[in-house]
Amino acid sequence: MSPENTRVAIIGAGPAGLLLSWALRDAGIDSIVVENRTQDYVLARIRAGVLEQSAVETLTRLGLGERIRTEGLEHDGIYLQFRGERHHVDFQELIGRSVTVYGQQEVVKDLINAHTSAGSTIYYEAADVAVHDLESSAPRVTFTHAGEAHTIAADFVVGADGFHGVCRASIPREAITLYDRSYPYAWLGILANVAPSTDELIYALHEDGFAMHSMRSPHVSRLYLQVDTADSLEQWPDERIWETLHARLGVPGWTLQEGEITDKSITPMRSFVASRLAYGSLFLAGDAGHIVPPTGAKGLNSAIADVTMLAAALAAHYADDDALLSGYGEAALRRQWRVQQFSQWMTDLLHRNRTDLQTMEFDYQSQLGRLDYVTGSVHAQRELAEQYSGLPF
Amino acid sequence: MSPENTRVAIIGAGPAGLLLSWALRDAGIDSIVVENRTQDYVLARIRAGVLEQSAVETLTRLGLGERIRTEGLEHDGIYLQFRGERHHVDFQELIGRSVTVYGQQEVVKDLINAHTSAGSTIYYEAADVAVHDLESSAPRVTFTHAGEAHTIAADFVVGADGFHGVCRASIPREAITLYDRSYPYAWLGILANVAPSTDELIYALHEDGFAMHSMRSPHVSRLYLQVDTADSLEQWPDERIWETLHARLGVPGWTLQEGEITDKSITPMRSFVASRLAYGSLFLAGDAGHIVPPTGAKGLNSAIADVTMLAAALAAHYADDDALLSGYGEAALRRQWRVQQFSQWMTDLLHRNRTDLQTMEFDYQSQLGRLDYVTGSVHAQRELAEQYSGLPF
Repeated sequence: MSPENTRVAIIGAGPAGLLLSWALRDAGIDSIVVENRTQDYVLARIRAGVLEQSAVETLTRLGLGERIRTEGLEHDGIYLQFRGERHHVDFQELIGRSVTVYGQQEVVKDLINAHTSAGSTIYYEAADVAVHDLESSAPRVTFTHAGEAHTIAADFVVGADGFHGVCRASIPREAITLYDRSYPYAWLGILANVAPSTDELIYALHEDGFAMHSMRSPHVSRLYLQVDTADSLEQWPDERIWETLHARLGVPGWTLQEGEITDKSITPMRSFVASRLAYGSLFLAGDAGHIVPPTGAKGLNSAIADVTMLAAALAAHYADDDALLSGYGEAALRRQWRVQQFSQWMTDLLHRNRTDLQTMEFDYQSQLGRLDYVTGSVHAQRELAEQYSGLPF
Repeated sequence: MSPENTRVAIIGAGPAGLLLSWALRDAGIDSIVVENRTQDYVLARIRAGVLEQSAVETLTRLGLGERIRTEGLEHDGIYLQFRGERHHVDFQELIGRSVTVYGQQEVVKDLINAHTSAGSTIYYEAADVAVHDLESSAPRVTFTHAGEAHTIAADFVVGADGFHGVCRASIPREAITLYDRSYPYAWLGILANVAPSTDELIYALHEDGFAMHSMRSPHVSRLYLQVDTADSLEQWPDERIWETLHARLGVPGWTLQEGEITDKSITPMRSFVASRLAYGSLFLAGDAGHIVPPTGAKGLNSAIADVTMLAAALAAHYADDDALLSGYGEAALRRQWRVQQFSQWMTDLLHRNRTDLQTMEFDYQSQLGRLDYVTGSVHAQRELAEQYSGLPF
C-alpha cells in the first residue's frame, strides 16, 4: 500500500491532538490523526474540568465555543479554606479575569463532533503505531488499522499521545532528559449526581489532608480527597468518602449535599517535564511533554497552550516564516516551567506531607502562614489570580 | 541581699532586649536587662544588615534614627540573578516602600550608647541566670554578677536571650512544641574592605549554588556563598572564595571588586518556631522564640517587630488595658509564620538542593521557572516587594 501524504501527522486523539488537527484545518493545513484507543474510550475519559480564559478564547476563535458559552460555568474565583475558615479569592475583582468550568470530556466531544462534520481523517484503534525518520524532513508514521498496514508520509509529526505514548520514547535517549518529581499522596476523585454545594471551587487544607469541591454541571458535583498513595478504592466505600469530605470541607453554617456516586478513581500525582518538546521534525504537545499534579488545574490548559502555539508556528512555517516553529520547543518549555512551579506551589501549599516526621509539623504551620498571608494580601491574591486564570499563550 | 524590684526583667542584651528596655523607658516603664556575655562581645557580633521600613520607623520614633539617617543606605529594591542575567525588582516603584542597609552591630551600638547616656540598668556577664515562678504574677530572676548573688522581682519576664537562652527552656516541656526545619546547606559569609560592586543587594541562583552580594557601608562589602554544611573555613581560603564569587555572581560587563577579607564565618541555616511566645508572666521575643534562615533578611526585623508589639502591649497593660498583652503571643506568632514561609520560600527559591538525586534537577528547573515568572510579573514582584520590605508590625 502506497503511503498517504499529509503535512502534519498527529499521534493521539485526546484534546491536544484533536484540537491541533482542528486548528490546522482552520489554517488550511492538512493533517491526519492516529489514535490507538477507540473513539468511545477517548470520549469517556474523565479528566480536568477548568478552562483558563485563554483556553476559552482559543476554542471560541476556532468555532468551538458554542457549548462552552451555554453549558460552561464561568467562575470569578475560588475559595481557599484552612483552619475551618473559607476565604474567597475574586479573580474578576483582582485582575479582571475568570475561568470556566467545562469538563475535558465536553471539549473532546465538541472536537469529535466538529471533526466528524468536517470529515477529518482520524484513525482510531490504530495498532503498532511507530514514528520514523524524525531526523529527516520526511518523517513517516506506520501503524496497523483494521488489519491493514498503513504508512503516512508527512512534513512533521506531532506527539500528542500522552505520557505513555510512542513519540517521546522515539527520541534517542541521549538527546533528552526527563525531569520529574512525585508526591507522597494521591487524589481520590468522585463524580456525584448532586447539585454542587458551592458556587465556586473550594480548595481546603485540613489537618487530615487536602479536600476539594469542584463540579461538572449544575447537577453534577466533582469532589476530591487527599489519600495515601497505597490506598485502594476498596478502602474507600461511599460512606467513608462522604464522612471524610464532611470533615475536611465543613465550615459552620454550610452543608455539603450528598448524592449518588457515579464514578470513583484514585490518581497518583506527579510533576514531569521533558527537556525538549522538539526533535528534528517531531514536536511534542500536552502530556507527551509534561505532566502536572492536578491541584492548579493546568493539565488540559497546558495542552491547549502548546497546541495554540504550535498551530500558529506551523501556519507561519507554511507562510515561509520559520521563526516561530524553530522557537516552539523553547517557548513552550519556558511557559511550561512557569506552570509547573505554580502547580507544585499549589500542591505543596494545600496537602499534608507526612513523609518527614522531622519537618511535617513545621511545614503544616508554614503552609497555614502562607495561606494567612495570601488571603490577607491583595498583591499575593493578584499573583494567585494571574497564575490560576492562566498565563498568556 | 534583698531583691531589686522592677516592672519588666529582660533577659538578653541583644537588639531585642536592648530595644525593648529602651521602648519601655520611653513609655515610662522600668526594666532591668540581664546579659551573660560582656558588652564588648555583644557589640562585636556580626549579624543581619537589612532593616525593613517599619523597623526604621520604630527606631526613629524611639529617638534612635539619627545614625540610620546619616549612615544607613536606603535601598529601593534588590537584584534577582539567574541564568547569568540580573533583574532589578524595584520596591519603591512597585509599592512605594524601601529597606535600609544598616548593620545589626550599628543598631546595638546605638542602643548601648542611648542606654549608657540614660543610665539604664544592664547587668553584663551575669552568670547562672535563672527565671522562677513564671506561672505566678510575681516572677523572679536570679543570677550571679561580679561574684554576688542577685534577685530581681518583676511583674513580667521577657526572654530576649536567643535560641540557646534559658527562658524558653524554662517553659515546661509539655506546655510547648518546637517546630523546626533544617536546610542541607550553609552560608559562608565574608566582610571585605572594598566598596560594594553593586548599588543594590544581589541574590543569585547559580547552577553551582547561591551567592549574594550585600554591603555594610560604602567601603565594606558583605558577600555570601552557599557551601556544604560539613565545610570548614580551612576549605575556603580567600582565593577560592573570590573565585567562586566571581563564577556565581558574574554577568557580562560587570566586575566584582575584591578586597581584604576581614571576617569569615560559616553559618548553618535553620527555620525554628516555638509554639508559644507567652507563658504565664513570661514573654519571648526575637531568636528566643523563632529563627529564620537568613535569605529574606528577617531575623533582626522579626525581633524588632516582636519588641514593638510587646512594648505597646506592656504600655497598654500599665494603662489598665490587657487586651494587647493577652493577645501578644498569638499575634506575634501569626506574624512570625507569615515571615517564616517567606524566608523558607526565598531560601528554597535561591539555593541548589542536592540531597534528593531523584528530584534535584526537576527542582532546579522549577526554581528557574519561578524566577522567570516572578521577574516577568508585576503582581509577583509586588508580592515579593511587600514581603521583603516587611509586613506591618
